Amino acid sequence: MAKSKKLDSLIKALQIMPGVGPRSATRIAYHLLARRRNESLTLANIIEDAMHNIKLCKSCRDYSDDDVCPLCSNVKRQNTGLLCIVETPSDVRAIDNAHAFEGLYFVLHGHLSPIDGIGPEDIGLPILQDKFEKGEIKEIIIATNPTIEGDVTASYIASMARNFDIKVSKIASGVPVGGELDNVDENTLATSLKNRLPY
Amino acid sequence: MAKSKKLDSLIKALQIMPGVGPRSATRIAYHLLARRRNESLTLANIIEDAMHNIKLCKSCRDYSDDDVCPLCSNVKRQNTGLLCIVETPSDVRAIDNAHAFEGLYFVLHGHLSPIDGIGPEDIGLPILQDKFEKGEIKEIIIATNPTIEGDVTASYIASMARNFDIKVSKIASGVPVGGELDNVDENTLATSLKNRLPY
Repeated sequence: MAKSKKLDSLIKALQIMPGVGPRSATRIAYHLLARRRNESLTLANIIEDAMHNIKLCKSCRDYSDDDVCPLCSNVKRQNTGLLCIVETPSDVRAIDNAHAFEGLYFVLHGHLSPIDGIGPEDIGLPILQDKFEKGEIKEIIIATNPTIEGDVTASYIASMARNFDIKVSKIASGVPVGGELDNVDENTLATSLKNRLPY
Repeated sequence: MAKSKKLDSLIKALQIMPGVGPRSATRIAYHLLARRRNESLTLANIIEDAMHNIKLCKSCRDYSDDDVCPLCSNVKRQNTGLLCIVETPSDVRAIDNAHAFEGLYFVLHGHLSPIDGIGPEDIGLPILQDKFEKGEIKEIIIATNPTIEGDVTASYIASMARNFDIKVSKIASGVPVGGELDNVDENTLATSLKNRLPY
């Protein structure tokens, strides 16, 4: 029995969020109503603003408030001639948080998947081709996911880049740093052996 | 480095939700941006509507879209003369989902806690007193949490009710149905022994 239809709608609507099922949506809804009415109104405004106004940077296709994001406008980063190619905007965030890369990014928003009808145009490869043609990129680092689709996409991009004499590398796959070997799956271990480095 | 301030605001704002920390807020924000822009705008509207318009039922103090909620307006429930007293609106939902109670509810929105300055007025006891005076309540079932504060609140309400010759009971505390005894904490086991029932 629904005592408040608005509350039921809220509980249902909250479930568009990943990881939020009926139980946690219910908990969230009651919590917001009881203790966070003002902050919830702010949240609603922020969601609205974000969904209407966050666009894709014209250069890297990452989420941006402006036509070109601050990272792409950064001359120091431009001068590196380095371009890191990733599948999703959250990959950019992950890599940037590692503080180990000072170049530019390019976001595919997916990977090649002929079965699903996802071809080169759908993942922005014509824009990438333009970048290659301009001659400002000296090296690309491919950081697609280490999955079959990610690898296929990587090799497609690698052959595009080679037409322009651009250096191509791919991020290393292997055992996670700080992990324990017996928790690592067989494929990863096999890869880490195949890709072993001189010591 | 923030590439999109609006995205950072969204990630921060999402963290008002219980159980949502920086990591899951980030995951949620990217997911909504990538795949659920329209549903997110709907969610924003629903949150706004809920926070502005969900009020407390004048009779039971549960969340309601109307001045008096459909449950309190239900004559069949009124006629039982039964009133179940709980601490929070989500307790009403929990008990109602058990389909074992056909009477009316009353929500305290907390419990007595002199240390925090929470007295009888803060948990709606004057309204409860009015209900008792009207004479329509024949029995109250106290379903406050089995905590010290919940028990103190329960005994306060019990003595209020006894002034009106209202039958008072309290929900049973004991081992959870379907649970295993060796997973039950000692206090609960001790209570279940003390409150054992003839068989």
